[in-house]
Amino acid sequence: MSKPPVRVLIHGANGRMGQALLRLAAGHDDLQVVAAVSRRVEQRVQDGVPRFASRELGGVPAFDVAIDFSLPEGFDGMLAHCVSRGAAFVSGTTGLSDSQLAALDAAAQRIPVLWAANFSLGVTVLNLLVERAARDLAEWDCDIVELHHIHKRDAPSGTALALGAAAEQGGATPRYASVRAGDIIGEHTVQFAGIGERIELAHRATSRDVFAQGALTAALRMADRAPGRYGMRDLLAAG
Amino acid sequence: MSKPPVRVLIHGANGRMGQALLRLAAGHDDLQVVAAVSRRVEQRVQDGVPRFASRELGGVPAFDVAIDFSLPEGFDGMLAHCVSRGAAFVSGTTGLSDSQLAALDAAAQRIPVLWAANFSLGVTVLNLLVERAARDLAEWDCDIVELHHIHKRDAPSGTALALGAAAEQGGATPRYASVRAGDIIGEHTVQFAGIGERIELAHRATSRDVFAQGALTAALRMADRAPGRYGMRDLLAAG
Amino acid sequence: MSKPPVRVLIHGANGRMGQALLRLAAGHDDLQVVAAVSRRVEQRVQDGVPRFASRELGGVPAFDVAIDFSLPEGFDGMLAHCVSRGAAFVSGTTGLSDSQLAALDAAAQRIPVLWAANFSLGVTVLNLLVERAARDLAEWDCDIVELHHIHKRDAPSGTALALGAAAEQGGATPRYASVRAGDIIGEHTVQFAGIGERIELAHRATSRDVFAQGALTAALRMADRAPGRYGMRDLLAAG
Amino acid sequence: MSKPPVRVLIHGANGRMGQALLRLAAGHDDLQVVAAVSRRVEQRVQDGVPRFASRELGGVPAFDVAIDFSLPEGFDGMLAHCVSRGAAFVSGTTGLSDSQLAALDAAAQRIPVLWAANFSLGVTVLNLLVERAARDLAEWDCDIVELHHIHKRDAPSGTALALGAAAEQGGATPRYASVRAGDIIGEHTVQFAGIGERIELAHRATSRDVFAQGALTAALRMADRAPGRYGMRDLLAAG
Repeated sequence: MSKPPVRVLIHGANGRMGQALLRLAAGHDDLQVVAAVSRRVEQRVQDGVPRFASRELGGVPAFDVAIDFSLPEGFDGMLAHCVSRGAAFVSGTTGLSDSQLAALDAAAQRIPVLWAANFSLGVTVLNLLVERAARDLAEWDCDIVELHHIHKRDAPSGTALALGAAAEQGGATPRYASVRAGDIIGEHTVQFAGIGERIELAHRATSRDVFAQGALTAALRMADRAPGRYGMRDLLAAG
Repeated sequence: MSKPPVRVLIHGANGRMGQALLRLAAGHDDLQVVAAVSRRVEQRVQDGVPRFASRELGGVPAFDVAIDFSLPEGFDGMLAHCVSRGAAFVSGTTGLSDSQLAALDAAAQRIPVLWAANFSLGVTVLNLLVERAARDLAEWDCDIVELHHIHKRDAPSGTALALGAAAEQGGATPRYASVRAGDIIGEHTVQFAGIGERIELAHRATSRDVFAQGALTAALRMADRAPGRYGMRDLLAAG
Repeated sequence: MSKPPVRVLIHGANGRMGQALLRLAAGHDDLQVVAAVSRRVEQRVQDGVPRFASRELGGVPAFDVAIDFSLPEGFDGMLAHCVSRGAAFVSGTTGLSDSQLAALDAAAQRIPVLWAANFSLGVTVLNLLVERAARDLAEWDCDIVELHHIHKRDAPSGTALALGAAAEQGGATPRYASVRAGDIIGEHTVQFAGIGERIELAHRATSRDVFAQGALTAALRMADRAPGRYGMRDLLAAG
Repeated sequence: MSKPPVRVLIHGANGRMGQALLRLAAGHDDLQVVAAVSRRVEQRVQDGVPRFASRELGGVPAFDVAIDFSLPEGFDGMLAHCVSRGAAFVSGTTGLSDSQLAALDAAAQRIPVLWAANFSLGVTVLNLLVERAARDLAEWDCDIVELHHIHKRDAPSGTALALGAAAEQGGATPRYASVRAGDIIGEHTVQFAGIGERIELAHRATSRDVFAQGALTAALRMADRAPGRYGMRDLLAAG
């Protein structure tokens, strides 16, 4: 490919997701991590990637897109920096305040912006299918059952709520049930039950890498978009 | 078969379960319904079966076993009548008081007695498997998910609670989740989740007839037992 | 409702499907069965519905739509009759020859025509979801597993093949696995498997009535359509 | 713990399973890997574990149990060596010949010997449940569906065949269906289908570590057994 690789900045590089992003990015020829940003930095370069502390953002080299899996505290600075650099912003940071969500919309006037609760391709497709199904099965009972590992505290999961929002968008009224057991990475089943028949739409994640892999793919596809607020669905190949 | 058919009395003959018992009994050569008892009677004989009102119990012909799916109000009279006749007593009546449960134990000194929350063969076997699994997987997380039709009010279901009791018997600590949707007859899944692996033990009922069919089989197998308190498991062929 | 009921003719009235159609039609105020046609007739009127033998088609009263669940032998006559009467034609007859399929297309020039392998609403929606999913997940492995009762001889089922065709339409290459067990009415699962994640899209039928109910709904929606060849998807409320 | 750790030899140390065994053994205080044996050796000591080539078996230090995940070619030598040392032998090597299986039985006269197709605790328990269920549900249809990653060539899987053998032991006649898709580590479902009801007994592995972890546990439990041929079930806590 003669096209130069997309230049990526990873924010929250020391977190579990940041580490996965760095590890998996090494397998992508079409992108290059030009900066890994975290609150504290121990080495200037690690595994060939230049490291920067959050307060050193001014010194990072040019980048096309930032992937942000940090904490609400670091979110504002990173978003503002992307606007000032004219770079795309892809974020999975949770626990954002209303004013931070508003800041996302404001930034979308000037740069391409994507925020998602779940970056896996499978969940993105499931979300779309659930809305479609709900439109035709609005009179059926809609239930969402999700299973996660025993350490997950919030219930229902953010992904379950997003699936529920899709079902509501289609006209259904979802109910939720949550199970916390073992080390289950994440399973979501959306059931539509009528009289004498039922549909079950399920997603099973068996590796956490799918989320990081999905975020990298999202970054690649966001890099050269027009300014605006995007969702994972907008990036689907089939459109 | 030279063996004479087992003589059966059905108590609660006008209820949904009673009607199913009468309908399905017609297909069994090895049993004969000699009396159908209900609170009120409209015809003396219906579909070839003599009908009796509850207050006419004294007049019913000799029988080997009574199948009782009635209400707590009628329960005591029927149980006492079986003791006085020396007949076996098979009951699925729910909502019994403590004193009624004690009466069951007392009667078991003199006649064979069986009470069960669920008469299906599959659930009986599942119950046994859950206890066995719990013994070896006591450290895994145990969750019971049950699905029933939208009109079922109690949750968790009696069958789920019985499965949970079996799990506890084996050493596990079950948690429950309930879904009410469509016209689902009854589905129960007992999940044991460890690290990196999981076991799911599930039962799906697709016809209500399995419960009536199971009660008829139970009656056949109880008819000539020694006095005592029995459970569905005691009737399994494999013992 | 001031609208007059849709006048329906049922062809293949003595078959299992025909009997279900007649039984369930009684619960619909918006349609009226004006003729039940079968090879042989024993009574001129049964349960309030006029009966006609196949060779007496000329004598049936005016109707808006014919529902045909017969045999390939009777198919041609019924289709031709609908064309001559200008009535809609809804058929689930299986085992049609190529020339019969061509006749369907020819008839569609003059009357509204619908043929389907499966009339349940759930399967219709599933079909649509599978095609949509396949479009975005074309690189994932696609497998279709179907379960039916032990008496079903063909495998994979017609419904599984239709789901497979939808997957192919979307760009996937489905493989099939079939299980024949117990009295399972029909379960179909379409799985898309990627790396580290999976989607399962499943339909479970627990009552055969869903197929007859779906055919009646189809008839109602086809009665006043323009001539043309329709599929179940065309009748979905959400379009 | 005052008890000294169990001394373990790992045979096939360079294979995928051998590497997992070495990695996970480091987390067990109650065992110590005293020798890692493989066809070829590059370093004398690696990660603190002494390495030996297969032809250097004479020089390995004293050990209590050997865990063998090698190839049929290396199997005979290792087994003979355990007999000569009076050590227990735990093997998951596949593709053994009849004479090798006979050698296992012969060795069991003098040392404790265990061979298994699947070392996960969950599959061991499932195997036991399947046999128990089959005994009571011998007249129901029994089907085993297994899913594995696309690179697995044999079908049905060895684990599926072992589950099938357990079902036959109980009196059922299993049939098999296999799906190869994505990177699925291993899923097995044993279904018993009756009339109007069904039981599904399933195991899902989501990490390959469960197999190595199970082999380490088996080694710990085999170390001080009396000579004899053992199966995974014999090691279950609940006996």
